[in-house]
Amino acid sequence: MSTSPLMQIQRPTLMIDMEKARQNVVWMKYKAEREQVRFRPHFKTHQSHAVAAIYRSLGVSAITVSSLQMARYFAEDGWDDILIAFPLNIREMGGINALAAQIQLGVLVDGIESARYLRDHAEHQIGVWIKIDTGLHRAGIWWEDAADVQQVIAMISSNPKLSLQGILTHAGHTYHAQDAHQAQHIALQSKEAMLTLQGVLQEQGHPDLQVSIGDTPGCRLLSDFSGVDEIRPGNFIFYDLEQWHIGVCGDVEMAVALACPVVSRNRQRSELVLYGGSIHFAKETISYQDQQIYGMLAKMKDGRFQGVQPENVVIQTTQEHGVLRVSEEFFSRTQIGDVVLVYPVHSCLMVQAMGTYMDIATGEKIPTMVTQHEDCV
Amino acid sequence: MSTSPLMQIQRPTLMIDMEKARQNVVWMKYKAEREQVRFRPHFKTHQSHAVAAIYRSLGVSAITVSSLQMARYFAEDGWDDILIAFPLNIREMGGINALAAQIQLGVLVDGIESARYLRDHAEHQIGVWIKIDTGLHRAGIWWEDAADVQQVIAMISSNPKLSLQGILTHAGHTYHAQDAHQAQHIALQSKEAMLTLQGVLQEQGHPDLQVSIGDTPGCRLLSDFSGVDEIRPGNFIFYDLEQWHIGVCGDVEMAVALACPVVSRNRQRSELVLYGGSIHFAKETISYQDQQIYGMLAKMKDGRFQGVQPENVVIQTTQEHGVLRVSEEFFSRTQIGDVVLVYPVHSCLMVQAMGTYMDIATGEKIPTMVTQHEDCV
Repeated sequence: MSTSPLMQIQRPTLMIDMEKARQNVVWMKYKAEREQVRFRPHFKTHQSHAVAAIYRSLGVSAITVSSLQMARYFAEDGWDDILIAFPLNIREMGGINALAAQIQLGVLVDGIESARYLRDHAEHQIGVWIKIDTGLHRAGIWWEDAADVQQVIAMISSNPKLSLQGILTHAGHTYHAQDAHQAQHIALQSKEAMLTLQGVLQEQGHPDLQVSIGDTPGCRLLSDFSGVDEIRPGNFIFYDLEQWHIGVCGDVEMAVALACPVVSRNRQRSELVLYGGSIHFAKETISYQDQQIYGMLAKMKDGRFQGVQPENVVIQTTQEHGVLRVSEEFFSRTQIGDVVLVYPVHSCLMVQAMGTYMDIATGEKIPTMVTQHEDCV
Repeated sequence: MSTSPLMQIQRPTLMIDMEKARQNVVWMKYKAEREQVRFRPHFKTHQSHAVAAIYRSLGVSAITVSSLQMARYFAEDGWDDILIAFPLNIREMGGINALAAQIQLGVLVDGIESARYLRDHAEHQIGVWIKIDTGLHRAGIWWEDAADVQQVIAMISSNPKLSLQGILTHAGHTYHAQDAHQAQHIALQSKEAMLTLQGVLQEQGHPDLQVSIGDTPGCRLLSDFSGVDEIRPGNFIFYDLEQWHIGVCGDVEMAVALACPVVSRNRQRSELVLYGGSIHFAKETISYQDQQIYGMLAKMKDGRFQGVQPENVVIQTTQEHGVLRVSEEFFSRTQIGDVVLVYPVHSCLMVQAMGTYMDIATGEKIPTMVTQHEDCV
């Protein structure tokens, strides 16, 4: 490669290393096969037909999304086994029925009210998962409340158009773990809770309920998946500083970074101002060396990113500005007009905020649902 | 009006009250006239041709934007006096020259390096402001460093295509004030610093430098603008919880809110799960009653929003989910499928995240630059 695509960068641009992304998918796909669990990756992380092609080339056919809109976007690209892993939004029931007429669609319910609505309004075959809370405390029926789950099962079972799949959880509290050991512990507890509930329900006459679990830290760190039927990780295709900071991935595995022009220098504070701010970094932070940081510089190697530069961190973002605090050495060799590569704290949110990737190997632009959705005019 | 546009809401939707927005603009426009300062409102808050029409109908002709892209977007709509209030991004010099050939374009420089680059590469008439730091510590030359400012002036003055306008600051640290009194104090200090620097430069042979100041809290709260030539507030057209919390605006002045379907209820925690999460709320928070909150429910009146419900607040957001902690009374009368209206913490970022408004009076969709930009395919 004679010239890097970075040469042409004029404004904040989300760079993707497709080969790293592919390696991350291969790793997780093999783990799922080895552990004999169905692999239903979450596509909200990348939101892109072109990135989804990595999965397709590896034989993946079942996917997870976080909205009806996203389900439609991937159905248009030929994906026909899609789970919307978000509590049933009854205001979209018309769209859900329409899509269920075309593909194998799954939805979540997490209470008797939505189960009743679904029973009364499902017009086509729909797969149903019951959302269980194993500690995140966001949505879902608490795993000890088997009686509530049974009520929902009874409701779902009374409409033959609904096919009950099983119980599902997202142990997103692994994201708040202090280290990999703690994340693994949380994931293990969450899995045990699911298997316990499955056992209770089995005793009560429901022998065929599957178990689906989801988060990237758990899927990466757990070593025993016995009893689990399905995993739904998403973030692992790109990883990010949050995952690296917990210890879920190595820094060289991170597959996206934001290219930002340097627009200003302040020698007293050893700071560079980047064109790249809240609307690009999406405002997530991690606590790193007693400071909240929004991003960390990537090492450059052959025009690609390859691991972190922990001494150079983004310490402030406003709408379009980012403030990068750097080492004296880095400051001295950096000029306005240079382009730096910054790893995001949370890759899923950065992809949503940016809407388009640039392939760091080829310079090709890769659109996402965000830049192809119905509101784009 | 027989039916509210809220009836048709299926997913998170940014509702705008155009009449409130118009009133907010009228208020600031009159203040600028009374104080005899040029009114150059910042358009990054609304990013929309249709919302910009409010300003045009009131005779505003000079505007501020935060990127070259945004300058182009508004130039296409006939705006021809535009300041890009962001440190000169030399990687976009080609685009800057092209736009400067068509309209009256202003740019910022905040150091000798960008001033030199501009001197060497300006091909058309460009207005230049020197960015001054009066305490935000983001970009700009520190206001006491008059010698550095003079160096920049000398550089700019050596190219007749560049017309030096004056010194400019954004006292964005008013946003971090604890209350209106403190915000006013910060704004006053910032203004005094600018006038002091102007005086020093005048003594040193630069009598014609204008002073431009910018932030919404300062422009709303300051009562004396003598010596100031231009104001550039943006946020005030919509305001938001941050401004209300500081005491910059009343709660009934807030002109945008996010309509969110309720998808799940948890009676034990008195929480509702909303379809509306990090990708809609944009992750800004304020500290309210010892809790970080992402949004606050609006009172509804005749299908419009009108003031806050401080007992009902968004306490958590993830990609698509928001958790709304509510009073027992509100919980009891709310069902899944209901739509609630939530005020944002930072309206500028929510507009960027959402990309499209819905007029709460008419149900009409209003696009922005985000949904009309060059990446939309």
